[in-house]
Amino acid sequence: MDFEISHRDGFARRARLRLAHGVIETPAFMPVGTRGAVKGVTVDELHALGAEVLLANTYHLHLRPGDELIARAGGLHAFMGWDRPIVTDSGGYQVFSLAPRRTLTEAGAVFRSHLDGAEHTLTPESAAEIQARLGSDIAMSFDECASWPATREAADAAMTRTLRWARRGRDRFLQLADDPPAARPRPTPDQVQFGIIQGGTFQDLRDRSVAGTREVGFDGYAIGGLSVGEPVDLMYDVVAHTAAQLPDDRPRYLMGAGTPEDLVESVARGIDLFDCVLPTRNARNGQLFTRTGPLVIKNARYAEDPRPVDPDCGCPTCRRHSRAYLRHLFVAREMNAATLNTLHNLYFYLDTMRRIRKAIEFGTFAEFRRAFLQTFSRRPPSLSLDV
Amino acid sequence: MDFEISHRDGFARRARLRLAHGVIETPAFMPVGTRGAVKGVTVDELHALGAEVLLANTYHLHLRPGDELIARAGGLHAFMGWDRPIVTDSGGYQVFSLAPRRTLTEAGAVFRSHLDGAEHTLTPESAAEIQARLGSDIAMSFDECASWPATREAADAAMTRTLRWARRGRDRFLQLADDPPAARPRPTPDQVQFGIIQGGTFQDLRDRSVAGTREVGFDGYAIGGLSVGEPVDLMYDVVAHTAAQLPDDRPRYLMGAGTPEDLVESVARGIDLFDCVLPTRNARNGQLFTRTGPLVIKNARYAEDPRPVDPDCGCPTCRRHSRAYLRHLFVAREMNAATLNTLHNLYFYLDTMRRIRKAIEFGTFAEFRRAFLQTFSRRPPSLSLDV
Repeated sequence: MDFEISHRDGFARRARLRLAHGVIETPAFMPVGTRGAVKGVTVDELHALGAEVLLANTYHLHLRPGDELIARAGGLHAFMGWDRPIVTDSGGYQVFSLAPRRTLTEAGAVFRSHLDGAEHTLTPESAAEIQARLGSDIAMSFDECASWPATREAADAAMTRTLRWARRGRDRFLQLADDPPAARPRPTPDQVQFGIIQGGTFQDLRDRSVAGTREVGFDGYAIGGLSVGEPVDLMYDVVAHTAAQLPDDRPRYLMGAGTPEDLVESVARGIDLFDCVLPTRNARNGQLFTRTGPLVIKNARYAEDPRPVDPDCGCPTCRRHSRAYLRHLFVAREMNAATLNTLHNLYFYLDTMRRIRKAIEFGTFAEFRRAFLQTFSRRPPSLSLDV
Repeated sequence: MDFEISHRDGFARRARLRLAHGVIETPAFMPVGTRGAVKGVTVDELHALGAEVLLANTYHLHLRPGDELIARAGGLHAFMGWDRPIVTDSGGYQVFSLAPRRTLTEAGAVFRSHLDGAEHTLTPESAAEIQARLGSDIAMSFDECASWPATREAADAAMTRTLRWARRGRDRFLQLADDPPAARPRPTPDQVQFGIIQGGTFQDLRDRSVAGTREVGFDGYAIGGLSVGEPVDLMYDVVAHTAAQLPDDRPRYLMGAGTPEDLVESVARGIDLFDCVLPTRNARNGQLFTRTGPLVIKNARYAEDPRPVDPDCGCPTCRRHSRAYLRHLFVAREMNAATLNTLHNLYFYLDTMRRIRKAIEFGTFAEFRRAFLQTFSRRPPSLSLDV
């Protein structure tokens, strides 16, 4: 892995992250391909949109089709036909949010599959093993994410357990790297592993989490446990506070966020990587992002609107189709509605990141940020960071 | 409209059909875009597949979003962002197969919308008006399709009514062309209209239908009322018998057929145009066409099969993805399964037509036909036509 920062503008960083399967220009947004597919768009379309990296979910792929099967197919890249970088999460978040009848012990999580009820166990060690079999470029350490709101006691317990799990998962990861199973080579020998900072919205817990996770030592660091329901300004405060303590020369990844505003505000606080289901999920629900704010395509006012979703947008959907047509497809429940809406929303996210990167390069990020928030959300830039 | 036959091989014809929105190389297959969208694939993807013409359904578009709305948007081409030729059916077949509580009189069909129960009327005249508003390149005459099996009496009644309707629909079509409503110009002033031959599987009824429909006089002729359940050899006999009596210098369109075998066998009997939901609908159900026959992707035997669906296929799906991945997507009910399967099946159909056209050009259609049927269906070429 190589992480080279070329420009800085305030706390914002413009860098190139070289991974086993290629280079990511950061700050970057990672579309989510939960089960090895970004819902509604093909790999060719993702290439055309300029996506450089995807996130895939360890929990889902472990259950179906199974990481052993994917390993036999040569890893997730070969299996899904995507030859650029992939990040896999640890599966922890999905166990806590999706699996029925889960029990959590110091060893790990025992849970029932939401597909067939079969019992599964996920531990810091097995999460590392599964991700080694998937062969992602970046594997994530197994963590426990406290729900929100959490008492200090609950947030503390989840954070300290995450620290203990970080050590175990890191050890297993390094052991796998040094001593791969003889049976078959790892699909991605140059896989790297990121640690995850927890601690809820308590700054002193975040401090201890950063210190402990840095002590374990990872290739990069993620901020977890945010965008789970807390007020947005509180989230931005935690991001600013936490990012500032992470090593400057390592990529920083804000997990699960967020809105277009979250991207801009978190880049302003030093974040390099993002993933979120928002652009893809909202596309399927008919919410489209534009520079002047979101648009709900099913509204009757669009029934005869000949304009593209966003007249300033260069995406395949806006270049060819009107709001009226997209509304028709959505109302008629045609699956092409999901595809065309997803193409638009992903383009909007990826284009926003391109514009962010350009602004950092030109040293005009503060102006970009102000203008973006003014036109997109019509609220002043967040208060906690005066850039 | 211009229809220029450049090569003949037996009864098979190789021609170029010039319509208001461009040229179709025939014999041609028309993917079905029922509601103004080919389910699962974008216009860009249809272009890349080489589709030159689509079929859209008058019944569906009349009910939603409405042909008046589409006319105000500039016609179906502008509305759906497809600038190549479009054929619209007359709506008759859908009224008989989809609409609840329909009553048929000499005037036309009164039916309830399957969407909201609202009462609608479709007549030979209104079918012409609706299709004029949609602005398709080829409009179809309003017909009554007898169900199968039909008594001679029922087939005769439907055929003679279709003849009377043909005259009325043709008159209205010509009147609209000569005297467009002042309110707004027709989206496609050069629209042409095809008549439909009925008569079930009774050759003498088909004879009378051809004679009567030719007497009315259309720009092209379609064979309707087939592929509705009758034995395939009987269908091929009716196609051969009917096509031979249609004017040589006009395009011949076999409606609603068919299987890859149907395409080859019907080209051998003089057909130029086809439409069918088979490649798209079966794709969504996981049935994939290959040169050696169909493949059901959900079968467990494909769970770890690293090969593309068809090793000889050049489609986007086969170039990038394995059977194992496609099976995973299908089993996981990912919508990308529908898209990737549809891309493959449409490519197979369009490529089959390309190979048919080449064979006719080279005078090798008989060999092509024999080889195709041997590898695809492993049954000897149909008996009724010795080519």
